[in-house]
Amino acid sequence: MASDPRFFNNYGPFSLAEIAKIAGAEIYQQTGGGILISDVAPLEIATENHISFLVNSKYLEILSTSKASACFINKKYIDYAPKSMVLLVSDNSYKSYALAASVFYPQEVGDSYIDPTAAIESSAAIDETCFIEPNVVVGENVSIGKNCTIGANSVIASGVIIGDNTIIGPNVTISHAIIGNNVLLHPGVRIGQDGFGFASDRSGHYKVPQLGRVKIGNNVEIGANSCIDRGSGHDTIIGDGCMIDNLVQIGHNVELGKNCVVVAQVGIAGSTKLGDFVVLGGQVGVSGHLNIGSGAQVAAQSGVIKDIPPMEVQGGYPAFPVKQWHRQTAMLKKLIQKASKKND
Amino acid sequence: MASDPRFFNNYGPFSLAEIAKIAGAEIYQQTGGGILISDVAPLEIATENHISFLVNSKYLEILSTSKASACFINKKYIDYAPKSMVLLVSDNSYKSYALAASVFYPQEVGDSYIDPTAAIESSAAIDETCFIEPNVVVGENVSIGKNCTIGANSVIASGVIIGDNTIIGPNVTISHAIIGNNVLLHPGVRIGQDGFGFASDRSGHYKVPQLGRVKIGNNVEIGANSCIDRGSGHDTIIGDGCMIDNLVQIGHNVELGKNCVVVAQVGIAGSTKLGDFVVLGGQVGVSGHLNIGSGAQVAAQSGVIKDIPPMEVQGGYPAFPVKQWHRQTAMLKKLIQKASKKND
Amino acid sequence: MASDPRFFNNYGPFSLAEIAKIAGAEIYQQTGGGILISDVAPLEIATENHISFLVNSKYLEILSTSKASACFINKKYIDYAPKSMVLLVSDNSYKSYALAASVFYPQEVGDSYIDPTAAIESSAAIDETCFIEPNVVVGENVSIGKNCTIGANSVIASGVIIGDNTIIGPNVTISHAIIGNNVLLHPGVRIGQDGFGFASDRSGHYKVPQLGRVKIGNNVEIGANSCIDRGSGHDTIIGDGCMIDNLVQIGHNVELGKNCVVVAQVGIAGSTKLGDFVVLGGQVGVSGHLNIGSGAQVAAQSGVIKDIPPMEVQGGYPAFPVKQWHRQTAMLKKLIQKASKKND
Repeated sequence: MASDPRFFNNYGPFSLAEIAKIAGAEIYQQTGGGILISDVAPLEIATENHISFLVNSKYLEILSTSKASACFINKKYIDYAPKSMVLLVSDNSYKSYALAASVFYPQEVGDSYIDPTAAIESSAAIDETCFIEPNVVVGENVSIGKNCTIGANSVIASGVIIGDNTIIGPNVTISHAIIGNNVLLHPGVRIGQDGFGFASDRSGHYKVPQLGRVKIGNNVEIGANSCIDRGSGHDTIIGDGCMIDNLVQIGHNVELGKNCVVVAQVGIAGSTKLGDFVVLGGQVGVSGHLNIGSGAQVAAQSGVIKDIPPMEVQGGYPAFPVKQWHRQTAMLKKLIQKASKKND
Repeated sequence: MASDPRFFNNYGPFSLAEIAKIAGAEIYQQTGGGILISDVAPLEIATENHISFLVNSKYLEILSTSKASACFINKKYIDYAPKSMVLLVSDNSYKSYALAASVFYPQEVGDSYIDPTAAIESSAAIDETCFIEPNVVVGENVSIGKNCTIGANSVIASGVIIGDNTIIGPNVTISHAIIGNNVLLHPGVRIGQDGFGFASDRSGHYKVPQLGRVKIGNNVEIGANSCIDRGSGHDTIIGDGCMIDNLVQIGHNVELGKNCVVVAQVGIAGSTKLGDFVVLGGQVGVSGHLNIGSGAQVAAQSGVIKDIPPMEVQGGYPAFPVKQWHRQTAMLKKLIQKASKKND
Repeated sequence: MASDPRFFNNYGPFSLAEIAKIAGAEIYQQTGGGILISDVAPLEIATENHISFLVNSKYLEILSTSKASACFINKKYIDYAPKSMVLLVSDNSYKSYALAASVFYPQEVGDSYIDPTAAIESSAAIDETCFIEPNVVVGENVSIGKNCTIGANSVIASGVIIGDNTIIGPNVTISHAIIGNNVLLHPGVRIGQDGFGFASDRSGHYKVPQLGRVKIGNNVEIGANSCIDRGSGHDTIIGDGCMIDNLVQIGHNVELGKNCVVVAQVGIAGSTKLGDFVVLGGQVGVSGHLNIGSGAQVAAQSGVIKDIPPMEVQGGYPAFPVKQWHRQTAMLKKLIQKASKKND
């Protein structure tokens, strides 16, 4: 087996024809649709009756020696595949793989069950289809929709509302939040705590009560140990379809549009607004009170201190348009080389 | 209501005259002191009988159309406010707002109660006024003062001492620590674990026992999922009044003076000492064994590798005085532009 | 006492001769071996009958006034020590100290005991010598070896395998993982959650099932709130002897060789491979799909976007060889100074 049965349940096999249909891919030269595929696997690991995928051209050589029976692939790489391999051609071979793999390994949800060790206030309304693991703590007036899982030792504070089909990992803390459907929160996520708000003078710091909430849309995923502070007066908002990685910090009043991608260890300071489909690379920092336009992308580790127009790609510290950045870096290199020669 | 009653209890209304007094502000032209203010709210959200505040000049236009009945404001912005708005003039309008908002929304403390699911060693001394939430674990000889809250699923290891009026959020871990009064630890904080100490040779790494403690003063706030390692022999010390944001890393033997501000995702390496009122911007890194003088400030994402004198503002990677930094950046830009023209 | 007896048990005293033997050090001029040493302590704190150590030449002045009876020291610093101090000479005085201190303060392990509040599936196999703290949750078919400690409120999900003598701190979450012997996981560590894998198109993001595991070797230490995602198809692998600090992010399919050192807040993106004895300074970011050769070192906060050959030291953003980096920085400084003079 490609995946370890200790940890994963394989719902296969499926015929290649079924898989192609689910994945929106076309079987190259229309042969092999009847083959029974037993599992998905990376190119190096895949053996007979496995289906794999090629996305990154770095792995073309591995493709050429792979033992996979079938592979999702972009048209342009067809010639690199072994002749014996059945190819499922797709403009977006990674999406096709994602759809296929999700049929073999669907997100599993626990049976309806509330562990007797869970401490649940009587005023909480938890749908009877939910799976509540041991030692979960649920506060007053909490509302939890259908088919949700709340992981062991997680704490859902008073008033929190959670939609349907949402999965909350173990050791998570949520307060002051309204969370949508099909949301996935990984272990150790912290949502709804006080933002970093205080007024200062020479005598010290004066805490400003944080009176907003966190609103999380549908189909959002938030990575392990990430933190989203509640708003100070406005709400902190995470739009539908956002993908947030591990150890990310999102400050009070920040708003993310739809389908943003926020890679690990990014920090977004208070009151900054992102449009839709914004991509922030790993460890990026974004200052407060900025507007980042829809479709903007920022290279890893960059520091954003000014608004970014829609669709613009930026990088650097401080960040500016990436074309200009690369040009300046090249120019600088030349200047230094020239000066070095003079000194030789 | 400006704030969601699912999550917040409003202790108002209060008369404007009362509020002005509490907030140390003066009512402009002495009219309106009798108005009853029902809530605090940001300028865009505020409606009749709400009081708001203006701090950032970015929001002057929003001020001009706000429906708030009253507003904390600095003298110089008075002319931007609608004529109908009652103005509470203050040199520090944000502090005034902080004081007022804290009267409407004081920090709430649970009633004296120890949840029966809490696992508390018999040698622990917990004041009878404390509120201990479900599944809290308290080790031997722990001492907890008056009116403290320990959040659900938190773990307080043997010997820890906690002062009065301290609030510890859910899913927190504390060991080898002595914590003062009026401290606020947000969810997922880790205090007192081993520092990153080991000796190395060609065969591998040899763990050095970490034999110090963490000492946290009074009125300290520490953000979600931040980590403070205990000292290796000396103690790690956080001075009174320090404000530490989320996901911050503080290494062994680090010392913070009073009222330091440490923004999210900062890392401070072992044995570095900060004076009082030091401000480190988000994602700053500070090397080990350095001295950062009182009042020093470091721009976000900078990398500090040398001592910083008191009151100096630094930025860059590696960090140096910010004036020099900006001057060099400007000069560099010119050099590149000049070279680019030559090449055109 | 140098260490606080509230928190630490001192197994001393030991004679200096015993200590020298354990520590692999030589007593300078062969006198003083009979002295009874009661504790270890830093130079400033140490008093009579304490042994200390000198590693960093920054502390030579402190050495000269220290009241320690004995000190681990490198040959070259002998003349800086007070005449009355007994010196234990070692090529690696910090390693010698580590070995000695570990005799005074060995890692303590709880007695065999399973707290009745622990929720353990009947199919789990936990060795009878283990110490399982309150509210621990252990899933189906979990296997835990001899003399392990599982800290309070930690969650070990189904199928996880843990070796012997491994210590897992409180509030830890582990799933989809196979963990070796003598491993130490600090509080809040997250292991085995989904990696950040999804395919995207204009309609949004499609989750890719993450079907690999996390494999952690022997003698590994992982710092508080660090996150290690499981592989997407391959495994994520942490080699024997690796030291990982707090708040570190390790993406899916990453492989670390043996004895790597990863300082706090580092992020390593998916599918990158590190050789043995690689050192990554604090807050370093490493892009995905790279190869970092054995013995390579990267300066704090650097951004690695290309492969690094074995033994090479790099720094900067983006990172390049550190000699070149320093040379360029110096050259740049000159250029700027020259241009500044012209403008004066």
